[in-house]
Amino acid sequence: MTSDRLHAQLAFAIEIDKLKRVIRRNTLMDGSRRENDAEHSWYLGMLAMIMGEHAPPGTDLQKVITMLLVHDIVEIDAGDTFIYDRVAVEQQAQAERAAADRIFNLLPEDQAVRLRALWDEFEARATPESRFAKALDRLAPILANHLTEGGTWALYKVTARQVLSNVEIIAEGSPTLGEYATGIVQASVARGHLAP
Amino acid sequence: MTSDRLHAQLAFAIEIDKLKRVIRRNTLMDGSRRENDAEHSWYLGMLAMIMGEHAPPGTDLQKVITMLLVHDIVEIDAGDTFIYDRVAVEQQAQAERAAADRIFNLLPEDQAVRLRALWDEFEARATPESRFAKALDRLAPILANHLTEGGTWALYKVTARQVLSNVEIIAEGSPTLGEYATGIVQASVARGHLAP
Repeated sequence: MTSDRLHAQLAFAIEIDKLKRVIRRNTLMDGSRRENDAEHSWYLGMLAMIMGEHAPPGTDLQKVITMLLVHDIVEIDAGDTFIYDRVAVEQQAQAERAAADRIFNLLPEDQAVRLRALWDEFEARATPESRFAKALDRLAPILANHLTEGGTWALYKVTARQVLSNVEIIAEGSPTLGEYATGIVQASVARGHLAP
Repeated sequence: MTSDRLHAQLAFAIEIDKLKRVIRRNTLMDGSRRENDAEHSWYLGMLAMIMGEHAPPGTDLQKVITMLLVHDIVEIDAGDTFIYDRVAVEQQAQAERAAADRIFNLLPEDQAVRLRALWDEFEARATPESRFAKALDRLAPILANHLTEGGTWALYKVTARQVLSNVEIIAEGSPTLGEYATGIVQASVARGHLAP
């Protein structure tokens, strides 16, 4: 006999498989194709696992990992937004809240509340965990662009000034990773892979 | 200044991006394409997060999640093996150990030891955490095949007897999920989506 709780959990499990079909702007690190949200979320979970020592002391890394696995699920309904498209980013917030209302509520209520709280915390970026999680979310595409001679920066005419606004977000979550990302931006400008 | 530790962590981070290009036999739940190991690993991490109450009491779910994020990284070198291909499964074990030696050792030693231990624990399936992790790893493709009218079962001429050997592995990690998977197998045979 499948309980009501298991039925609800399975409905959510089937729904979130769709995250594998939400395509982001940036590519894999070999440039072979654009990345999807599900593999991106796995990647960030791994980054949190191995980069944890660069978070402020006391940061709950297990919470960071679960937050990162959950953070893009709303994009099943709301789609991916390019972080350098400012108008879209503002319109996006409302669509993502509606998506969170729908998707997390497929779960039994206690679990819906828990996952929604993780997502809200990630978005608010007011705790060490959410700041570190957001830092990794911003670091990954910078790393991918660095490894693909500029990658999506050239394609979407992104400037160093715009990337540095994201580097500030990285530095707020991890000064060490912020310093490293600053170095990437400087090197990318020097090599002509990023407009000054 | 980028420390030696951060350099090693970045080398590992760049290496594991390749997991996004390791393709599994089973498809997404809409049947649109075959799945890769990275998005599969994300999916299992999410399953662990929402199905945890079906693990034996006292199971460390955070450990299950990290174990699942790590479990397929060896396939960057060793490739994916179809679980119903018995000869390949045996040859695979040696290739995976060599891959673990190479890839985890890109990390600083303490982290390499920790991730290798997680992978060894997963493979040995001797703890509640590894048995539950393996149960989810076996459940996900059964769920996907169920939702695609048999999916890879028909394609690779897999029989109910073979699937039931995996259902036993699920039941060892979670009796509730084992019972649910048994129901899927019975329904799939009844509908003609799986050979008896």
